[in-house]
Amino acid sequence: MQRPLENIRVLDFTRVLAGPYCTMLLADMGAEVIKIERPGEGDDTRQFGPFQNGESGYFVYLNRGKKSMALDLKNPHAIAAIKELVKESDVVIENFRPGVMKKLGLDYESLKELNPSLIYTSISGFGQYGPYSQRPAYDLVAQAMGGLTSITGHPEGPPTRSGASLGDMSAALYAVYGIMVALFHRERTGEGQYIDIAMTDSIIALLENNVMRYTVDNIVPVRIGSRHPISSPFDIYQAQDGYVVIAVANDSLFKKLVSVMKQPELAEDKRFHLDPLRTENETELKAIIEAWLSGYTVDEAVEIISEGGVPSSPILTIEDVCKDEHTKARNMLIEVDHPVAGSMRIPGNPVKLSQTPPIIREASPALGEHTAQVLTDVLNWDSKKLKALEEQEV
Amino acid sequence: MQRPLENIRVLDFTRVLAGPYCTMLLADMGAEVIKIERPGEGDDTRQFGPFQNGESGYFVYLNRGKKSMALDLKNPHAIAAIKELVKESDVVIENFRPGVMKKLGLDYESLKELNPSLIYTSISGFGQYGPYSQRPAYDLVAQAMGGLTSITGHPEGPPTRSGASLGDMSAALYAVYGIMVALFHRERTGEGQYIDIAMTDSIIALLENNVMRYTVDNIVPVRIGSRHPISSPFDIYQAQDGYVVIAVANDSLFKKLVSVMKQPELAEDKRFHLDPLRTENETELKAIIEAWLSGYTVDEAVEIISEGGVPSSPILTIEDVCKDEHTKARNMLIEVDHPVAGSMRIPGNPVKLSQTPPIIREASPALGEHTAQVLTDVLNWDSKKLKALEEQEV
Repeated sequence: MQRPLENIRVLDFTRVLAGPYCTMLLADMGAEVIKIERPGEGDDTRQFGPFQNGESGYFVYLNRGKKSMALDLKNPHAIAAIKELVKESDVVIENFRPGVMKKLGLDYESLKELNPSLIYTSISGFGQYGPYSQRPAYDLVAQAMGGLTSITGHPEGPPTRSGASLGDMSAALYAVYGIMVALFHRERTGEGQYIDIAMTDSIIALLENNVMRYTVDNIVPVRIGSRHPISSPFDIYQAQDGYVVIAVANDSLFKKLVSVMKQPELAEDKRFHLDPLRTENETELKAIIEAWLSGYTVDEAVEIISEGGVPSSPILTIEDVCKDEHTKARNMLIEVDHPVAGSMRIPGNPVKLSQTPPIIREASPALGEHTAQVLTDVLNWDSKKLKALEEQEV
Repeated sequence: MQRPLENIRVLDFTRVLAGPYCTMLLADMGAEVIKIERPGEGDDTRQFGPFQNGESGYFVYLNRGKKSMALDLKNPHAIAAIKELVKESDVVIENFRPGVMKKLGLDYESLKELNPSLIYTSISGFGQYGPYSQRPAYDLVAQAMGGLTSITGHPEGPPTRSGASLGDMSAALYAVYGIMVALFHRERTGEGQYIDIAMTDSIIALLENNVMRYTVDNIVPVRIGSRHPISSPFDIYQAQDGYVVIAVANDSLFKKLVSVMKQPELAEDKRFHLDPLRTENETELKAIIEAWLSGYTVDEAVEIISEGGVPSSPILTIEDVCKDEHTKARNMLIEVDHPVAGSMRIPGNPVKLSQTPPIIREASPALGEHTAQVLTDVLNWDSKKLKALEEQEV
């Protein structure tokens, strides 16, 4: 079987999360991803926990199926080698602060001279242009400056970061979509190009209808906890031993719910008989539902509500998710063997392609594991040239 | 200029958010997206607010640059027309409950007989297989069952939904990555395939290191508000008139911060001089920082902290984001003209491609605007055949 990105070579200068996650998505589809790392330390995430036999699980997960070259970007011989590799590559990707690659002579303008059909992607906090482009951005800053933090959390509480690093993850996803569009275009025209991805732009792009509510109705969306803006009861409710999702979006589902609750009179109640009234009297309704739920565990409640034909679910912890039969059936937790760490379970790829499924070939590389191999295989370097480069490395 | 997805025809059966956002990302890149809608009502989101001259802003934003055909999927003549269109299309995409397309005779197995190189994508709550595949899933359910809700929010508060519909938006992003990989593969081999995307899988895929902390260290990640799990002070803090992000990830940045605060002695304080100690004594440190911030507005605080070399930002509301100069410079809010609604500002596309930038050609179509045009242009139907179909529609 031909892998879909077979023969696509990616020179990957990225570190930490957004860039490595993007190139992981390319590696899963068969691209040859060559990760360029600092000699000695490598990607910062090699030092991030959790550790197994001294190897970072964070690194193993994000860098599966990649090659690693240890090259010092301050060494002119390494830069020369990289420029030779650029000629033999399809994609370059980096997530330094804007300007760093230019100082190294590795910016798009320089590299496209060597390879006009190159696809060059930069991921940064605020993008390559615009008033904030030089500001540092962590995920927390991107979520805050992209507006998402202001609408996440409870009305009485502070703005809240999402529990996952969405600034990084969404930037990675928009980047891989851009890279695939550019590869498709290049396949048909031979033309390369530059792609500029910002974490804050990516967060803004996730806001969906929150933006329209402001631009059309001049409403500034606020934090509303977990409830639905215009339907009730559609929220997270407290049961005996935890929380339950109940999702009622219309009057007929509400009738089913109150029948399950053995309080059918609520369907006729003037406060609750129509969806807009339920939303208006949401606090009272929530109190009634939680009083009823206080007699049930989460499992009991989800079962009887679902059996009554009303959408309901528990709120799974990360442990629950990892142990869930559905997660297993969907291959969303897979096992890789790392030569040092041993066996590790890492998140799978959610894109289930029938003919060219994502394949997690192997665990992450050791730092510099493929330096000599890539130079030999791709550039036909001999041992003399390899040795010369090595002697130049500090 | 050739658009990157020029000559790619997408038959789009999707409704509401995840599917329409995915095909919007294809339309932005030049694909011809033909949206198949129920006669009379169309996509549910045509009835969702906010409205401008009776037109839904939600619909206009998500369906920009698409064509609309009004076809009744219960009418055999409409199904026959769709099957003719499938032969002339590259991509089919749907987000019905698993099984619905099969009942209509429009499942992948049936359609690939008509067009073996077809790329067929299904988006659903739990995917096409696995124990939960028949369960209904709203975004709230996908966030809860994917584990994200359990780690979003404050330790003393309940689990919290993210303020944006990440179950839908992430499924759309993984789907467009899958479709582009499949299109690229087809361009090189002629082979079509089926793609199965689940909202819950997509949420699990966003959890990043939270999964590794459990699988490697057996730690079940919990809600920690907006703070950083292993660095302090890296959180959201209360100033006079709102909240401020301060992001200190190492000891030298901490020295800079306490110098800005004119409390340099804190850098020597035994509770705070090292990052792990600051995280251990995070509550005390937060109180000290917020006592200091009580003398400043958000704008003042961000300015002096940033000037001191420490990353800091405000928390922008949706209004702030929409009015921001950076948003404007990055084209993240663009204007479209709708024939009925008039001018509307909608979110832009965050993928800045230099040679083939995303182009928002026009606003969303009227319901059925292109029914006759598509049948005439693509299938060469004459007026007699068009009339016959029309008479069959209820």
